[in-house]
Amino acid sequence: MRNLDENTITDAVLARHEHVGNARLTEIAGSLVRHLHAFAREVNLTESEWEQGIRFLTDVGHMTDEKRQEFILLSDTLGLSTLVVAMANRKPAGCTEATVFGPFFVEGAPEYENGADVANGATGVPCFVSGKIRGLYGEPVPNARIEVWQADADGLYDVQYPDDGEHRGRGVLHSRADGSYHFRSIVGEPYPIPHDGPVGRMLDALGRHPWRPAHLHFMITAPGYERLVTHVFREGDPYLDSDAVFGVRSSLIAPWLQHEAGVAPDGTRMATPFYTLEFDFVLNRAAL
Amino acid sequence: MRNLDENTITDAVLARHEHVGNARLTEIAGSLVRHLHAFAREVNLTESEWEQGIRFLTDVGHMTDEKRQEFILLSDTLGLSTLVVAMANRKPAGCTEATVFGPFFVEGAPEYENGADVANGATGVPCFVSGKIRGLYGEPVPNARIEVWQADADGLYDVQYPDDGEHRGRGVLHSRADGSYHFRSIVGEPYPIPHDGPVGRMLDALGRHPWRPAHLHFMITAPGYERLVTHVFREGDPYLDSDAVFGVRSSLIAPWLQHEAGVAPDGTRMATPFYTLEFDFVLNRAAL
Ligand SMILES: [Fe+2]
Ligand SMILES: [Fe+2]
Repeated sequence: MRNLDENTITDAVLARHEHVGNARLTEIAGSLVRHLHAFAREVNLTESEWEQGIRFLTDVGHMTDEKRQEFILLSDTLGLSTLVVAMANRKPAGCTEATVFGPFFVEGAPEYENGADVANGATGVPCFVSGKIRGLYGEPVPNARIEVWQADADGLYDVQYPDDGEHRGRGVLHSRADGSYHFRSIVGEPYPIPHDGPVGRMLDALGRHPWRPAHLHFMITAPGYERLVTHVFREGDPYLDSDAVFGVRSSLIAPWLQHEAGVAPDGTRMATPFYTLEFDFVLNRAAL
Repeated sequence: MRNLDENTITDAVLARHEHVGNARLTEIAGSLVRHLHAFAREVNLTESEWEQGIRFLTDVGHMTDEKRQEFILLSDTLGLSTLVVAMANRKPAGCTEATVFGPFFVEGAPEYENGADVANGATGVPCFVSGKIRGLYGEPVPNARIEVWQADADGLYDVQYPDDGEHRGRGVLHSRADGSYHFRSIVGEPYPIPHDGPVGRMLDALGRHPWRPAHLHFMITAPGYERLVTHVFREGDPYLDSDAVFGVRSSLIAPWLQHEAGVAPDGTRMATPFYTLEFDFVLNRAAL
């Protein structure tokens, strides 16, 4: 444990972890130390670069608060989130694919009845969303809890505005007896992930743009089924092939159809043009 | 760039970095992404573990302020700091070895004359420290800037107390014409690194103690010489073989000699027992 050098330090750290009760924690910590050290050795990380790294992480930490999760942005932009989601969601064919959770989910979104307008004042062109929740064998899933959240026409989530206590563009619904759901909201637009912080500076320095293709977030839970966290992406979006967080899946892209003023699918008389989006979800069985 | 899975995500992230001007940044970011992904794949990191990781880093970020650098503690306890220091300090034989910088350095420490008491009220048994700064060929290094910092008898640095504007147990001196320096301070004691935060919880969960063997920090700079950041460790300390941050080097261990009340090396009449420590430093030439 004395005179450790660049070749012996890794084993010395691992040796400290030998007598721990939590085998999984030891495994994770050991692997993290080995890969972190391998990274530093591979690039021959200098003291000044290490200092810059400490400063970067400090900035990420100080940018993070209850409404801004810069560490999730970092994980998302480094592709770690997509990797973890992919490993956790090896589902049978036919199930709706999962994608990244993102940093904009908030607890406590309001409950709505089917047909309600979850925009709740968020700006944007009206969009009527509908579909069915089914299981792998085609069975309808009634009373599934469907949480949706999305950005407004300016590409901002409600939490990115000064807090007035209102949730906008997010809500919780439940599927009906036949598995169907429908609600009103607004059309999603592409938006840049928040890039006024250290992650934005990192993207900039790497020559990367911060844009995500337009999408609508869904988190669907039902007893006996695996939780599904996913998006529906808007067909034709210019960022589908360069999503800043690597989340696009072809099976999650759907047409958001534009309609002239008239009667919406739920019977609402619309004096302005509006959109419709129809998307069905297939849930995996829960692991026993 | 669509339908990325656990096998294709890594190359997809790297492909985004291909057209960057800063080749070194691209190299570091690419290596980091590869090793981070390899870690996640190796342990099959779950979504819940990823969430715990995000929460841990968030806690580390929120623990960090101007006086508490939890990210440096994290780097130190994971052995990354010792690795980086080792790679950056491949010096010719005969040079004083470097060790970790640690989280307790602060800018703006007061300047002292040789012979001054840098303790400035920090509690502890008096200790008279002296030695010489030399170059590789034995040449004395006059007017070297010598910054020292240390914990008090309770194992705490001044920055760990409520701020009263005073620096205690830290200061800046300059070597004299013959390379010699001497100052008064207090005896170092072993101390636990701050462990009331997320890094302390991590050590606890890994079955590791937070203790460091007693030491005195030195940072020495002089024109024409490489900056030296190091410690002198106290011979006989019980933690020399289990330093929480892996910093001990045999060549940096020195006897801190106890003396009865009487006359100190600098002529001070001491009514209580005191210690002396003598340590010479050999600086490497600066890279051209
Ligand atoms: Fe989003
Ligand atoms: Fe220290």
